[in-house]
Amino acid sequence: MDKAQDGHPEGYRVLTHDDIPAYIAGVPAIVAQLGGGPADWTVRDVADGNLNAVYLVDGPAGGVCVKQALPYVRVHHDWPLAVERALFEHAYMVRLDPFVGRGAPQLYHFDPTLFTIVMEKLEPHIILRKGLIEGRHLPKAAPDTATFIANATFNTSDLAAPFERKFEDIAHFARNQALLRITMDLVLTDPYREVWRNRYVRPHMEGWAASFRSDIELKTAVARHRIGFLTNTQALIHGDLHSGSVMVTEDDTRVIDGEFASYGPIGLDTGAFIANLIMSWYAHGAYDRPEADRRAYRDWILEQIAIFWATFRDRFLTLWENATEAGDAYPADYFTDTAGKARLATIRRDYLDGIFADTVAFAALKMNRRIIGYAQIADYLVIEDLERRARAQAPALALARALLTRPERFADIAAILDAIPRFERAGLDPDAARHL
Amino acid sequence: MDKAQDGHPEGYRVLTHDDIPAYIAGVPAIVAQLGGGPADWTVRDVADGNLNAVYLVDGPAGGVCVKQALPYVRVHHDWPLAVERALFEHAYMVRLDPFVGRGAPQLYHFDPTLFTIVMEKLEPHIILRKGLIEGRHLPKAAPDTATFIANATFNTSDLAAPFERKFEDIAHFARNQALLRITMDLVLTDPYREVWRNRYVRPHMEGWAASFRSDIELKTAVARHRIGFLTNTQALIHGDLHSGSVMVTEDDTRVIDGEFASYGPIGLDTGAFIANLIMSWYAHGAYDRPEADRRAYRDWILEQIAIFWATFRDRFLTLWENATEAGDAYPADYFTDTAGKARLATIRRDYLDGIFADTVAFAALKMNRRIIGYAQIADYLVIEDLERRARAQAPALALARALLTRPERFADIAAILDAIPRFERAGLDPDAARHL
Repeated sequence: MDKAQDGHPEGYRVLTHDDIPAYIAGVPAIVAQLGGGPADWTVRDVADGNLNAVYLVDGPAGGVCVKQALPYVRVHHDWPLAVERALFEHAYMVRLDPFVGRGAPQLYHFDPTLFTIVMEKLEPHIILRKGLIEGRHLPKAAPDTATFIANATFNTSDLAAPFERKFEDIAHFARNQALLRITMDLVLTDPYREVWRNRYVRPHMEGWAASFRSDIELKTAVARHRIGFLTNTQALIHGDLHSGSVMVTEDDTRVIDGEFASYGPIGLDTGAFIANLIMSWYAHGAYDRPEADRRAYRDWILEQIAIFWATFRDRFLTLWENATEAGDAYPADYFTDTAGKARLATIRRDYLDGIFADTVAFAALKMNRRIIGYAQIADYLVIEDLERRARAQAPALALARALLTRPERFADIAAILDAIPRFERAGLDPDAARHL
Repeated sequence: MDKAQDGHPEGYRVLTHDDIPAYIAGVPAIVAQLGGGPADWTVRDVADGNLNAVYLVDGPAGGVCVKQALPYVRVHHDWPLAVERALFEHAYMVRLDPFVGRGAPQLYHFDPTLFTIVMEKLEPHIILRKGLIEGRHLPKAAPDTATFIANATFNTSDLAAPFERKFEDIAHFARNQALLRITMDLVLTDPYREVWRNRYVRPHMEGWAASFRSDIELKTAVARHRIGFLTNTQALIHGDLHSGSVMVTEDDTRVIDGEFASYGPIGLDTGAFIANLIMSWYAHGAYDRPEADRRAYRDWILEQIAIFWATFRDRFLTLWENATEAGDAYPADYFTDTAGKARLATIRRDYLDGIFADTVAFAALKMNRRIIGYAQIADYLVIEDLERRARAQAPALALARALLTRPERFADIAAILDAIPRFERAGLDPDAARHL
C-alpha cells in the first residue's frame, strides 16, 4: 500500500458530513438509487461504534449508508488505526454474500482509496444493544444471528469446501493485523494486567480487577484460548459479534461491522453474542423498572440464549448433513456405509461440542473485557449509580471466571442458563463468590 | 503469476544437464564461487526425491548444488505440479536462516523465473535414509534434526514473537497449495480409501489395505488429525521431514527440501522423523545381515528415537525459558511472581505434551502413507522378496493403528520404544494384530 507523507494511503482523506453529497455524486449507481441530485439529499451522522464514521443519506428515491474507516479510533483521536481495515470488512461481506442472504446489509459500492463502503440503509432497524437496554422483545434477533453465524462459518470451514479456497482466504485475512491486534490486546490480554487503557468502575471494582491480575488459574485459561484464537483457523469469523453489531426490527436482523474478520474459532462469534445477552440480563437487575416487567424481560433473555444456541447448532448440523460438496475434513467416500454414517453423526455431535466449549470460553472472555477493559458497554453505562452498576457487573465476572476455570461444569447451554441467576449473588468481593 | 501458453510461468523452461554451465555462467556470484569458467565445470545429475531436478556443479575453486522445480512430478511426468513450490522452499530457507544456523544448506541464489535455487553443495554428506539402510552409525543425525526442528518451530510460533510477524508468514505460506494438496491427499487421505495412486505390496498387503478402508475408528482418528493439519497454525513446519530430507556425515546434519513448508502442527515434523526411524527398525528385520549386527543396529535406532525426542523437548524448553522477547501466547507480565513462574513451568510441560500427542499421531500417519500409498520408501523397496517386505511392513501399520486409535497408551516416548519390538509380532492378518 503506497503511503502519502501523512502516513495514510495515497489519496485518502477523511470525509466530513458536508463532503458526503459531493462524494456520492461521483458514484453513478448510488446517485440513481437516491434519486435527484446532491441538493435533494439529506445526510445524518449516525456513528455509534468506537472506530468509524457512518452517515445515512436520503434522497427522493431511497437511502444508503456510507461508512468510512477513520485513521484513528473515532472515540479516541490520538489512537491511530489503519484505515485498511475497511478492505477486510468489504472482503468479509463479499465472501459471505453467497451464504448469508439478507443476514447482512446489501453491499453497493467499495472505495479502496477513501476506504469507504456504501451499503443498504437499514430502516427502521435499531441496534440490538439499544433494544435490549430498552427491554424490547425482538423475537428474531437471536435465531437470525445464530443462523447468520452458522451459514457464515460452516460454509467457510473445512467441512464445506476444499482447503485451497480456505487458504486463499486465510492469505488475505491474515493481513487484517491492526484489528486483530485490538482483539489480542483489548479482549484477550488487557483485563488480566495493568495497562493504561483499562477502565472499570472505581473504586467498587478494584477488588475484581486486582483478583483478575493475580488469578493464575484464570490467566492460564485465558492464555489457552488466546493461543486458540491465534492458531485455530476453523472458519471465517466476524470477530466482534456483540449486540452492537446486530441491527434488528421485530422481523428482520442484519449483522454489520465485519472489519474484525479473520479465520479463527467459531466460538468467538457465538460466545460474543451470548456474552452480551448475559450481561444484558445482569444489567437489567439494576434498571429502574417494575419488578414484574424486569422478571419477564430477564426470562425472555434466557429464552433467547437457549434459542440462539439451539438454532445455531441445528442450522450448522443441517448444513453439514445436506452439504453436496464435502470439504477436506471429511471426504465424501470416508463414511458411506451404515456404520460410517452412524459414526459421522457422532463426529458431528463432537464437532458441535467443541464449538460449544469454545463458545463458553469466549463468552467469558468477552464479558471480562467489557467490565475490566477499554471498551465499556451502554448496557452498564446507563446505570448511573456506580455501586449499583458494579453490583450488576460483578456477577458477570464471577460467572466468567467459572466458565473459564471450571469448564467441566458447563457442558451444555442448560448449565449456563441455570448458572446465570445463581451467580447474581456474586458481589464486590471476588473471593466470596468462589462458592457459586 | 503470469502464465505463458504452455501453462508455466512466463520465462520458465526446464534446464537440462547440458544447460547448467551456461545458466550458472549468468550468475556472477556463483561463477566466483566455482572458479574458472563453464568449460572447467563438471555437472552431475543427482536427483533423488520424487519431484525436482538436482545437479551438483564442481569447479576449480568449489561446488554448488542447483535445484530446479519441474512442472511435473519428476518420477511421474504426466502428473503436473506447480513450479511455484520453489518460492516456498526459498521462503522457508530465508525465514529460518536466523534460527537454524548450519542446520540447513547455505542459500546462494534464487531465480524466480526458472524457479531454481542454488545452494551449498553438501559433501561428503549422504542422505540419512541411505545411511540407515546401510546400517551406518550416524550419531549426530537424530539430535541435530531435533535441534533444527526445535529452533525452526519455537522461533516461528506464538511463543517467540508478536502475532503480526507470524500472520505475515501465514499470508505467504497459505499459498503453497499445490504441495499442501499432496500432503492432504497422499499422506492424510489416500491410504484409507481406494485411489489409483495407492501402491502396496500385492497380494500380501491386501488385507491391511482393505482393513484401513473399512476401519471406522482409524478413519475417525485420521480425520481428526487432518483437521488439525488444516486448522492449527502452530508454527512454520517443514512438512516433509523424513529421513530423505536430512543429509548427514558423522558430525554434520542438514535439513533440506523445505518445499512443503506451511504453518501447521509441530508434531508433523517430529512425527515424520520418528516414523522413518521406526520403519527403518522394522525394515532391518528383513535385511540380510548377521543377527548380532542387526540387533545392535536396531538398538541404536531405538536409542536415536529416544535421543531425538529428548533433544527436541530440551531444546524447545530451553529456547522458551531463555526467550528475551515473549510472544503473544504468554505475555511477559502474566506469570512473573513465584507462583506464576511455577505455573509457567507446568504450562510448558503441557505444551510439549501436546506436541508429543501430535507427534504420535503424525508418526502413525506417515508410516501408513509409506506402506499403503503412492510414495514408497527405499528402506522397504530394497527388500526384494515381497512377502518378506510385507512382513516387515505389517508391524509398522499395526503400531500406527494403535498410535492413532489408542493414543492413551502412548503418553511418552518410552511407551513407543517399548511398543516397537512388541508390534513386530504383527503379521499379514490385521485382525490378528489387534491384541498387541
